[in-house]
Formats: sequence, C-alpha cells, structure tokens
Amino acid sequence: MRVPLIVSDFLDRAVTAFGDSTAIVDEPDQPAAPVATTTYRQFGERVRAWQAGLDALDVEPGARVAVVSHNSARLQELLHAVPGTGRICVPINFRLRPHEVQFIVDHSEADVLFVDPELDADLKDVKGARHRFVLGEESESVLRFGVEPRPWAAPDEDATATINYTSGTTASPKGVQLTHRNIWINAVTFSMHVRLYERDVLMHTLPMFHCNGWGMPYATVGLGATNVVIRKIDGAEILRRVERHGVTIMCGAPAVWAATLDAAPEFDPVPGRDRVRIVVAGAPPPSRTIQRIGDELGWEFNQIYGLTETAPLLTVNVPDPADDDAPGEEKARKMSRAGKPALGVKLRISDDGEVLARSNVVMAGYWRNPDATAEAIEDGWFHTGDGGSMDEAGYLTIGDRKKDIIITGGENVNSIEVEDTLFSHPAVAEVAIIGVPSEKWGETIKALVVLAPGAEVTEAELIAHCKERLAGYKAPTSVEFRKEIPRTATGKIQKFKLREPYWKELGGRQVN
Amino acid sequence: MRVPLIVSDFLDRAVTAFGDSTAIVDEPDQPAAPVATTTYRQFGERVRAWQAGLDALDVEPGARVAVVSHNSARLQELLHAVPGTGRICVPINFRLRPHEVQFIVDHSEADVLFVDPELDADLKDVKGARHRFVLGEESESVLRFGVEPRPWAAPDEDATATINYTSGTTASPKGVQLTHRNIWINAVTFSMHVRLYERDVLMHTLPMFHCNGWGMPYATVGLGATNVVIRKIDGAEILRRVERHGVTIMCGAPAVWAATLDAAPEFDPVPGRDRVRIVVAGAPPPSRTIQRIGDELGWEFNQIYGLTETAPLLTVNVPDPADDDAPGEEKARKMSRAGKPALGVKLRISDDGEVLARSNVVMAGYWRNPDATAEAIEDGWFHTGDGGSMDEAGYLTIGDRKKDIIITGGENVNSIEVEDTLFSHPAVAEVAIIGVPSEKWGETIKALVVLAPGAEVTEAELIAHCKERLAGYKAPTSVEFRKEIPRTATGKIQKFKLREPYWKELGGRQVN
Repeated sequence: MRVPLIVSDFLDRAVTAFGDSTAIVDEPDQPAAPVATTTYRQFGERVRAWQAGLDALDVEPGARVAVVSHNSARLQELLHAVPGTGRICVPINFRLRPHEVQFIVDHSEADVLFVDPELDADLKDVKGARHRFVLGEESESVLRFGVEPRPWAAPDEDATATINYTSGTTASPKGVQLTHRNIWINAVTFSMHVRLYERDVLMHTLPMFHCNGWGMPYATVGLGATNVVIRKIDGAEILRRVERHGVTIMCGAPAVWAATLDAAPEFDPVPGRDRVRIVVAGAPPPSRTIQRIGDELGWEFNQIYGLTETAPLLTVNVPDPADDDAPGEEKARKMSRAGKPALGVKLRISDDGEVLARSNVVMAGYWRNPDATAEAIEDGWFHTGDGGSMDEAGYLTIGDRKKDIIITGGENVNSIEVEDTLFSHPAVAEVAIIGVPSEKWGETIKALVVLAPGAEVTEAELIAHCKERLAGYKAPTSVEFRKEIPRTATGKIQKFKLREPYWKELGGRQVN
Repeated sequence: MRVPLIVSDFLDRAVTAFGDSTAIVDEPDQPAAPVATTTYRQFGERVRAWQAGLDALDVEPGARVAVVSHNSARLQELLHAVPGTGRICVPINFRLRPHEVQFIVDHSEADVLFVDPELDADLKDVKGARHRFVLGEESESVLRFGVEPRPWAAPDEDATATINYTSGTTASPKGVQLTHRNIWINAVTFSMHVRLYERDVLMHTLPMFHCNGWGMPYATVGLGATNVVIRKIDGAEILRRVERHGVTIMCGAPAVWAATLDAAPEFDPVPGRDRVRIVVAGAPPPSRTIQRIGDELGWEFNQIYGLTETAPLLTVNVPDPADDDAPGEEKARKMSRAGKPALGVKLRISDDGEVLARSNVVMAGYWRNPDATAEAIEDGWFHTGDGGSMDEAGYLTIGDRKKDIIITGGENVNSIEVEDTLFSHPAVAEVAIIGVPSEKWGETIKALVVLAPGAEVTEAELIAHCKERLAGYKAPTSVEFRKEIPRTATGKIQKFKLREPYWKELGGRQVN
C-alpha cells in the first residue's frame, strides 16, 4: 500500500496519541500577554481553525501563504496548517529589509501575508498579497473554530509544502521548494539520528523560518515532544528557560552557543547539565567552542551539516563510541567534522572538491527559477557549493576548499585550520581568514578578528600565537580588528564579501 | 529530488559510515566452527560477493531466491544481497514441514533455494528451484569476491523486496509482498520509536525469516548497530549472551521472555540489568509477565503491534512519562496495551470491532493471490483480523473482540481478561480461554491450561482463583490441562483451532 508521505502525518499522530501532552510553551509578543501553554489537542484545533479560516478567505490549494514572524506558536501552527491542506507556506526571514520581503511576496505571488506585530510598522508598505494580517488579534479573527476545514482533495507527497527563500548573496533570493516528501524524510531521519522522543523538550533556538527550523517543528509534533518558543536569542535567557522548562534539546548555529557560553558564568549550577544535548550546524564550529560546551555547560554536542536546499539533514556527527575515552581536545576536534551521511543520503566529492549530494531531502528545485535549479542539480546530484573531504571513517569534513583554500607562495593553506588556531587564543571572539593580494606571494593570509569583550591583544601577539602552533607559511601576515563579521542567516561567513574590497582593484578573484 | 527508498540504503550507509564497526557476531551451525565476527566493511564485501554470485548463476532481476535457515549472518546477508539487486528474497519458516516448504517454493516459483545444513536432510526432496545449495561450504562456493555485481538497472521503491509466507491456518500459506518502500519506512519509523542507535547491540531473539525479523536486520545495518546471532531460543543461553556480547536490545514474542524469566534465577546478578530494553509483540503478554521483566530482570519493556502484512510496525507502546510514578502493577497493565500508532499509521476500528490500518508499511498484496489481497485491503484500509479498541489516550488495545468475545448467558466476556486472571496464578504457564457450547448458557467458558514445570493445581482451585478476582459469570466453568497450546509463528494462539473439536458436531461457529 502506498500512502502519500505528507506533513499532516505529524499532527495527526500528535492529536491521536499525545492529545493531553504539552505541545508548545509560547512566548507572548507583548510583555502583558501571558505565556500560553497548549496541548496537542488544542494545537490540532487551532491548526484546523487556521485551515477553515483559509477556506473562508478562498485561499486555493497550491496558493502561497507567506509569514514573516519571530518564533511563535502561531508560526509553528501555520507550518502545519498551510501545507496540511495542500497550500504552500512561505516562511520569511524576519531580519530582511522591506524591499527584500516585497521581492519574496512578489516572486512567490503570495495570496496571504501574515506579519509579526513587531515588524508591522517596518513592513507596512509591503504590497501585493490579496490578504494581509498582523499576527495576533488581527490574525486570530481569521481562525474558524469548530468548522471542519476542506480536506486536501489530492494529497501528493511530491507537492511543494514550503518555499524557503535563501538569503541573497550576489543574486536575488531563491525560493527553495521543499516537498512533503522532503520534509517527511528529513524529519524522520533527523529524529532517528538524534534520538528525538516524546520525553524531549525542544527549545527553538533556531529561527523557524530558517529551513522550517531544520524540520524540528514537524519532528517534535510527530513524536509528541514539547516545544518551547524563544523569540530572540539571548544567552542568559536561553539558560534561564532551560532550567524553567526542563529543556533537553536545542538546535542552533555556533553563534547561539557562543552567546550561551558567555552567559554561563552567571549560573551555578549551569542549567541542564548532563541532560541537554545540542545540535549545531551552519558553520564548522571551532573545536574550542565544542570543548567548552562539554566542559563548561555539561551539554552533549552533536553536529549536522546541510543546507536549506537539503531540508537540511545531509550528515550527522554524534559522539562516536570509539572516542569515548579520547582526550577532550581530540574528541572536540573530531566533533568539528560535519559527520556521517544520514540514512538515504549519498555524498560524493567532485573532482574540484565540491560536496555533491543525492537524497530525498534535496529540494524539488528553486521556485520559478529553472536556470538556477539546473545549475544546482546536475545529473541527479545536488551541488552544495561547499568544499569538503571524506575521511576513512566515513566522516565528511567541510574544508570549504573551493572557497577557503588560500594559495600563498605555492603552498595550499586551509583557512579553517588557521581560524581554529586563532580562535584558540582567549582574546579572540570571532575570526575570518581570507587571502588578500600580495605582489610577493600571489596571495597572503589576512585575519579579520573580533575581540572578546574587554580583551586586548596586538597584531604581533596573534601572529606569534599562530607561528607557535602552525607551519610558518600558514600564519597570517596581517591582522585587522573589526567590530563584527557579517554572517548569513545560516551563520555562514560570507568570505567573498570580506575579500571583495581587497581584490576589487585587481579585477576580482573567484567572487563566490 | 526523488530518490527511490530502497533497502540497499541501509548497507550503503553502514559501509560508508561504519566500515570498522562490528556488524555481526555470528553463531556457527557446527560446534567445531568458530564464532565469526564481521565488520560492516566485510559484511558489505560478502553482500556484493553474493550478488555477483547470483549474477553468475543468471538469476534475473525480479527472480525469487528462497532461503530456509535458522538465524545466521548469511541469512541477514541474503536479506540485503537479494533485494539490493532487484531480486526478491523469500525467507521461509524453518519450522515448516517439507510439503509446506515445497508449496512455497512452487508458489513463489523460486529460482534458487538455500537450505540450512541442519534442515538439509529433512528437506532433501524439495524440488523445483533451478539451483539448490546447502548453506555453508556449498553456498560459499556461490560467492564471487572482488567481482563487481551488476547494479539494479531500474531501482524502484515499489518493487517487491521480499515475500514472507504467513503460516497457513485453514487455507494455504499466503505470500506477503513487502516492497522496498514498506521495508524502508518500517525500519526507519521503528528505529525512531524505539530509539535504536549505533551503540546498540541487538540480539536476534526473533527469527529473521519472520517478517524479516520485524525489519531489524535492516534497521541495525542502517544505524551501524551490532547484530548478535542466536540460532535457537533458550532462556539461559539468551542471558549468557546478553552478558558476553553486551546486548542492549532484543525483540521477540512473549514466549521468549517467559523462557528468559524461567532461567533468570540461575544468574546473579541478572545480565543487562538497567541496560537492556526488549520489544515484544505477537500476542498481548499477560501483565504479570511484563511486571516480572521489570522486577526480576531490570529490563525495559516496550510493546509493538503489527502483522507480517504490515512490515510489521503499526503501534508502539513505550513507557509513558505520565506513568513513571504509577505502581508497578498499573504500569504493567498499561504496558500490555498494543500502543500508539506509529508515525504515518492511521488506525480505525470497524463497526464490528476489527482493527483497520492505512500506512506505507502495509504490504503491496499477497503474491499471486488477488482474491486474498482484495479481501485484506478494502477501500484503502488493511483488515488486520484482530479485534481492538482505542482509548482516550490514543492507545490501541487488542481485545480480539471478533475472535475472543464469549457470549455466555447474554453476558459478553473478554477472554483476554480471563486469561490474564488465570495467568496470575503461579501454577499456570500458559492458558487459552475459549467458548464451548452449553445447552444452558449458549456458550460457556473453558480454560485450556499448561502447568508450570513441577506445579500442581486442581480444576476447582483455578476456578476459585478466578471467582475471587472476577465477576462470577466470567470464571471458567471447566478447565482442561494440556501439554502445550499450539501457536502460530507469530506467537498467536489459534483459537479457532482450539474451539473446533467442541463445536464440530454443532456444525461449527465462526471458524473464521
């Protein structure tokens, strides 16, 4: 028997099997509002009420429903309600500027636009959607409780469930079309590999708009786990809520955990010690951060690798039994690898070092962008754009060779290795290593450094720190101190942007 | 991107990501042979050698390869090797008589037949397959190491991967066609719900022929867990191996755990205490057994419900956090429920009380038996043949109402309840409650009882035991002591067979 793999499977199970369990502990968008705790029965009723509301608004199957929202219960509800009836949810990055949101509304031809109350003023001129509602009082008026929504007439696992626009770099944002099957298989294999279960309390330290929160807003529901909403990332607030809500698992980019580590000294004992596990992705975190998470927080570190285009789970790195007795530093170094391919994922390294993937988690394509789709998926392989290598133990390491190998005086230098070394210096909070032009060496190594609050260090001291630990040619020849290093929504440092000013007058170099 | 969900995904991942991990600790079929431990790299090489061997024998894609074998590494290899290249594996119950094996070889038109050395003499007259090999020295000559097998030209998730013949009852055995998609989704959701992972050591206390060992021979491989082979079920031997191999998880029918409980007093401490979890199905185990597993072994009890026709996972009952502090007896009673629907499984109770299921784990159909298929799958719902009910918490309980409600003097009696009560008497090892004809009551309740070794009890004492604990009309009016109660390969008591002699002269009654 074939039954379509569709996202409503998650909520159907929760309502049947976990009706009385806590679905979501929400955070109000206004200090006056109470923290709302919803059971899965109530969550299911609200999802049906959203669906009946969309029926009443004549939103057709296949129509796009866009949402710009901080994390919230209603965003998680919409991630279920919209695709559950064959419509397409377009969760939009709440950090985007109005013209960027306008581009997405136009490009997706959104029929409905829901806007977070905090963003309403900023986004008041965004036009084009037939309906626009501010989330909260206004959107609540859309809900039709007690009305049976029209069922999805022809459930299809290959139908598009969500379109997630990736942050634009040089070009316009591209809409990643994730199908029901993409989302289903991602959520199930992800849950299996990180052992998500009904006793878990997952706090959404990752924006739900971002690749649908890596699929966790579906996985938690399918397994009857509890969701805890946090609207804005703040290290101390994360730790307080870990304690208050008994959080057991969180996903997020390395910057989230850096903020948490910074806040930890205020807490004694650290909340969630020996209970919390975290799942990290977005950029290879420095092994010092990994080690500190174990040492200072007592949390289990897991890493995954993937992209919005891959729903996202491509690889997973969980603590390897073979390394149980290894020294902390070695363990941390091994945990900084991207991981082993998830079940059903085939990986290949192309001749020029790019990671290619083949799997049911790979998107159907970019929405109304066949050229970009053809460029990304070639002969059945998705091109990640990341350089990497596979080791003998089956681990993928994102070496970012394509983007991050610096060739200086004929020697290849992996910028990640230099970054890791600089990061081991306590004064360094963030670092990006780039190659800049040099008449003598062709390219030479420059470090862009953000200092830790209150820390002081000289350029010469940092260069000496590297020379003690690396071959001389791998050490930076210059250091620039910066206030911040720009990152994408996924936490990736956009090196091409950092390199650009230095190479501009030379006519550019591999700018992406 | 759509990629077919095929069983080779499991081994592909193991070879890539767990090459050096222990795949199988095998048990030799002859005492002289050594226990063989195989890594996943070696396991992969052997599977490819099987496949190249089948190529050399001109076994075409789609051809059936039958295997009659006790649990063994080679049976697990064939479960991967045969479907992995688009052929169909037919694992046959090693308890069947030669004429039954002959029926299956004929009905499946098996091209190849592999026979366990212990069964060779018994099955020497089974004919019809183009090739017949005794497993061991003879079958090893089939393997072609170092030869690249022909790839499956058109991998298709809806292709049949295995045909599992269910034990015949009144009719001939029926061949359950499980597709690659059935097996994939069963293995992944099963792993997710019982939290199988790479640190697990699974001992095959369930025959691998039986519904492909519930899919565990695939799941363990996909997750890089270790398999331990046990050829024959023996309580003390199970406990010794739990200790020796660090076993963490086992699946099996209630009779397996009854045997283990019987042997436990020989061990101090009991191996695997607070480490082992077991997954039980086949028949609702008496709550006394469930409680004893926790109390006497210190093992975690989990229950599932399903059939060969459902790959098998339909429902899963893991210890509910809400019951953590409940008294042992209540906990055990709740654990005797079949469980909550697995992700993607829809359940419905028909008007006459039968459990119906709709899911991707439901078979494609019965091999070359469209009538039986049409009877089993109607309007997109699979008919389990089991009676049951759903409670408010979303748990299915197999009440077997269709088969097991006895109507005596106008009162409905659930035979499971009476069995449970009788089973709580220490002298009772096995029990089946049936309705037999009564001039006065229409039907009256009879208990068929197998006594525990060395135990003595009278009919009157057992009836009194029930009357103390149940409404009077629920107590048996007669008890017959038996040497054994016949069960199917799935551990189900065939009540219609037990009832038949009593009703024969009355012209029969619902002998389904």
